[in-house]
Amino acid sequence: MSARLILHEYAASGNCYKIRLAAALAGKPLERREYDILKGETRTSAFLANVNANGRIPVLQVGERLLPESNAAAFHVADGTPLIPADSFDHADMLRWMFWEQYNHEPNIATVRFWMTLVGEDNLSDLQRAMLPGKREGGAAALKLMDEHLAGRDWFVGAVPSVADVCLYAYTHVAEEGGFALSPWPAVRAWIARVEGLKGYIPITA
Amino acid sequence: MSARLILHEYAASGNCYKIRLAAALAGKPLERREYDILKGETRTSAFLANVNANGRIPVLQVGERLLPESNAAAFHVADGTPLIPADSFDHADMLRWMFWEQYNHEPNIATVRFWMTLVGEDNLSDLQRAMLPGKREGGAAALKLMDEHLAGRDWFVGAVPSVADVCLYAYTHVAEEGGFALSPWPAVRAWIARVEGLKGYIPITA
Repeated sequence: MSARLILHEYAASGNCYKIRLAAALAGKPLERREYDILKGETRTSAFLANVNANGRIPVLQVGERLLPESNAAAFHVADGTPLIPADSFDHADMLRWMFWEQYNHEPNIATVRFWMTLVGEDNLSDLQRAMLPGKREGGAAALKLMDEHLAGRDWFVGAVPSVADVCLYAYTHVAEEGGFALSPWPAVRAWIARVEGLKGYIPITA
Repeated sequence: MSARLILHEYAASGNCYKIRLAAALAGKPLERREYDILKGETRTSAFLANVNANGRIPVLQVGERLLPESNAAAFHVADGTPLIPADSFDHADMLRWMFWEQYNHEPNIATVRFWMTLVGEDNLSDLQRAMLPGKREGGAAALKLMDEHLAGRDWFVGAVPSVADVCLYAYTHVAEEGGFALSPWPAVRAWIARVEGLKGYIPITA
């Protein structure tokens, strides 16, 4: 019997959605516990001591063990399913896109979405305002790289969807909420439609 | 027979060293090609077309295929060795620390080291100067989290060294070059000594 999976999350976060979507596509049941990050519920001493010393969600609870980091948790719920490539190079190439997502995509596209939708442009600090042009440029460069990679192929790695597609889809499909236009990127838009056509797909609002 | 492994790199980069150290510990031969990032050798049209459209090193060449992203490449050279945990949860937990390294550790500790040693504090832009206090704080918080995790344990995951230790060691052991003191973190210093005692260990200057 598999260990019970409980997701400690803030539902509107794309990082949390990655894990819900991976579980849905993998056909794995997932219980959910909600924390309001805007009210500091992931910075309480109880959360830091019992869920994540890093003060962040998502955290995937696997039986009694705890797994922070969205991409690691999405990997774990998909482990043992066709969402994880069997070929050794393809497997590493899937991880390559997931590391790229954390370094080049999420800090730009997800952070600007957070600033625009939850913080509010008028409430940004001077430093955030100074960082905004670089983040807009970095996010657009990330979308361009994705579009070039997807031209002529259906999925990021190999011939079938993998967890790399799940992790990249989460913030890409809502990039326009942060002001990143998707209209210049037809291959990205076609790939978004393919993800949304997968058996078991659930939207971020589910 | 395994595919020939060629590392496209800038040797002083900790991200490139991760792959050299993983290969050395795994006992895998690795050829090396050097590019001077300070002279723009990873931004030429030939590099962008033939090695990495993202304009970055390291890139691991595996036969005819190319694998960017340091942590994915370190994973690949270690795949099939005891540096990759066999247990499913431990494997995901190893990835958790590698994603954490890319999001919470490298952008602070490695970036400030780059600014201090290669760019020079006097040459920083106004934006970089404004970001410096936050990066110093983020880097110190990362070292604190590592120290708390390592208190009472020898390695990041399970009872033996994994690629997570390799990826975290690369920039941690040179953190003082960026001005991050290691003296407050005894568990980190003891772990650094353990990594340096591993069979096959090579220094960043090798």
